[in-house]
Amino acid sequence: MSNITLKVEGMSCGHCVSAVEGAVGKLGASAKVDLAGKSVAIEYDESKTSVASLKEAIEDQGYDVV
Amino acid sequence: MSNITLKVEGMSCGHCVSAVEGAVGKLGASAKVDLAGKSVAIEYDESKTSVASLKEAIEDQGYDVV
Repeated sequence: MSNITLKVEGMSCGHCVSAVEGAVGKLGASAKVDLAGKSVAIEYDESKTSVASLKEAIEDQGYDVV
Repeated sequence: MSNITLKVEGMSCGHCVSAVEGAVGKLGASAKVDLAGKSVAIEYDESKTSVASLKEAIEDQGYDVV
């Protein structure tokens, strides 16, 4: 398993947390959102997904990965 | 039909808009959220629901009606 922490702009509430964690979860990875820190810590399996795919999943929810 | 505008704290994003408008809609009323104005304009039928019920529905979504 690999770990990465992405900086993500625009997450403001519990619904945003669910949206981001859910989208990452669909890729078989697990995410933990830090609203105050504007970041998402992700643990993922490199054989199943990629950082590019994880970023895309978050951006598809309407947030900016910076 | 009656109209009321409630001041509501804690709505921060599009998910919050959907949550509030959806909760009010379940009472047969229609709501329009103004995120920047921290308010919810509601049109409702007094024979079907009440201001107290509308406030409760919004609070049940995790927001403070002030």
